[in-house]
Amino acid sequence: MLLVILELVGIAVFAASGALAAVRARLDVFGVTVLALATALGGGVIRDVLLGVHPPTSLTKWPYLLVPALTGLLVFSFHPQVARLRRAVQLLDAIGLGLFVTGGTSTALALGAPPYTACLIGMTTGIGGGAMRDVLLREIPLVLRREIYAVAALLGCLVVAGGSVLGLPEGPVALAGSALVVAVRLLALWRRWNAPVAHGLDA
Amino acid sequence: MLLVILELVGIAVFAASGALAAVRARLDVFGVTVLALATALGGGVIRDVLLGVHPPTSLTKWPYLLVPALTGLLVFSFHPQVARLRRAVQLLDAIGLGLFVTGGTSTALALGAPPYTACLIGMTTGIGGGAMRDVLLREIPLVLRREIYAVAALLGCLVVAGGSVLGLPEGPVALAGSALVVAVRLLALWRRWNAPVAHGLDA
Amino acid sequence: MLLVILELVGIAVFAASGALAAVRARLDVFGVTVLALATALGGGVIRDVLLGVHPPTSLTKWPYLLVPALTGLLVFSFHPQVARLRRAVQLLDAIGLGLFVTGGTSTALALGAPPYTACLIGMTTGIGGGAMRDVLLREIPLVLRREIYAVAALLGCLVVAGGSVLGLPEGPVALAGSALVVAVRLLALWRRWNAPVAHGLDA
Repeated sequence: MLLVILELVGIAVFAASGALAAVRARLDVFGVTVLALATALGGGVIRDVLLGVHPPTSLTKWPYLLVPALTGLLVFSFHPQVARLRRAVQLLDAIGLGLFVTGGTSTALALGAPPYTACLIGMTTGIGGGAMRDVLLREIPLVLRREIYAVAALLGCLVVAGGSVLGLPEGPVALAGSALVVAVRLLALWRRWNAPVAHGLDA
Repeated sequence: MLLVILELVGIAVFAASGALAAVRARLDVFGVTVLALATALGGGVIRDVLLGVHPPTSLTKWPYLLVPALTGLLVFSFHPQVARLRRAVQLLDAIGLGLFVTGGTSTALALGAPPYTACLIGMTTGIGGGAMRDVLLREIPLVLRREIYAVAALLGCLVVAGGSVLGLPEGPVALAGSALVVAVRLLALWRRWNAPVAHGLDA
Repeated sequence: MLLVILELVGIAVFAASGALAAVRARLDVFGVTVLALATALGGGVIRDVLLGVHPPTSLTKWPYLLVPALTGLLVFSFHPQVARLRRAVQLLDAIGLGLFVTGGTSTALALGAPPYTACLIGMTTGIGGGAMRDVLLREIPLVLRREIYAVAALLGCLVVAGGSVLGLPEGPVALAGSALVVAVRLLALWRRWNAPVAHGLDA
């Protein structure tokens, strides 16, 4: 039960990030809603397609649609206030990434994928929705450009996959993995960590 | 038989819309053909991937390739005339959307998906090809920007899913759903209906 | 064994092309690595999703990750030298296309797809990774714009599918198909073959 609530929180957070980006791109209310859905559900749909879960889980249960749709409409109506909560949105986005990465890794392990594969699918789950959002809005995906995003996701899925190899209990390991993702992302945002760009591009 | 012909009409129409967009983006004859194929077959391939139909139907029967390829070549040769038929293209595109949405919903229901899931898959079938066309040409997808596109699709799949729940006969329900999609789209184009954009963006 | 080595060569070549493009787009070291992975593995993942291979092969064996990741890091460090090897990169890219197209066609045939379907899936395998690279970097995919790319892929898969229909031995046919792809691509580059663009666009 707690896990389902956490997953829906992650979905709401990603929906809000998609809706905010859509409002800034001046999409209308339906475009904002569609983009909120794509951002929130994209990662999970890709996960299920890769794992052969047909039809994808998030297309079979109505809360998975209702939560991001309502979130999209709320952001559409109150976007100036939401945008002012920039720090809160970044925090929630980090939490969403953590929950999606560890949740995707756990789902893949539960369906019999080996740890290595589960880790790759977990990363894809966490990163996929945001990448879809950016491609639809004609942006180079944030995950390719910013602040240790992929590395945070990698650390989270390594914790979950490692815990599974060592036979540790699932719940606490997933929480620890999510917390690590959140911590790394927030540190990267706070200290403005960025990875190096290739040198000599102007030479 | 009628259904297959209607589906191929929908494929030809979407192929024409992809080919016209590619001609305008100054792609060469092969690029135009590839884009016609992607626009015409993209929605159906996504539908089959989500439903676990392997390999996707449209990759297994040659009319599904021949019709959009020939359409692409015709548009490439006669594009000024086709572009002048702007109203006809919009009408055909609305028909294509109607056929794909109701066809996708029916296919999902026939494969055992519950009505709610079938509706989401039907919408994806109708919208997917056009979204692929726009992403490949580096445009923000039309479905996110214009004239009640997603809502028309939603109404169409609700009719089909509702008819299935009520046990109504499939054929007439699919026709009614398609007609509703076409009517809403044409009304939106004719009356220049557009959904509101978020207020306060310049504040 | 030879086939696996050839496939990994193809993966390394496509990874290098993705990493070079990412360096030019000024992505950081992680973005370059992610784009190298997406370009190298994208075609194979799409192939496996279309064929219903869950989870995709390239997510289950570590060389499929290690080779493109290391290639990405090497290109990041030595990109001026790699860029100077423009001709070598074009040659390797042609070889990669040949190997992926024939490999994808053979895999689809081995999994029971009919020749026609196998050919379409082989083309998708060869073209998919590069298209993903260009979409992520906000470019119109090269395959839509340049030098007989799709036609070279088509010829390669026709050789493999034709050989299978005629019952010829697989290995030599795959080699012949790959060689044909490479030859057509290099001829197109050397003679600056381009397909015609639609006339009358300024009229």
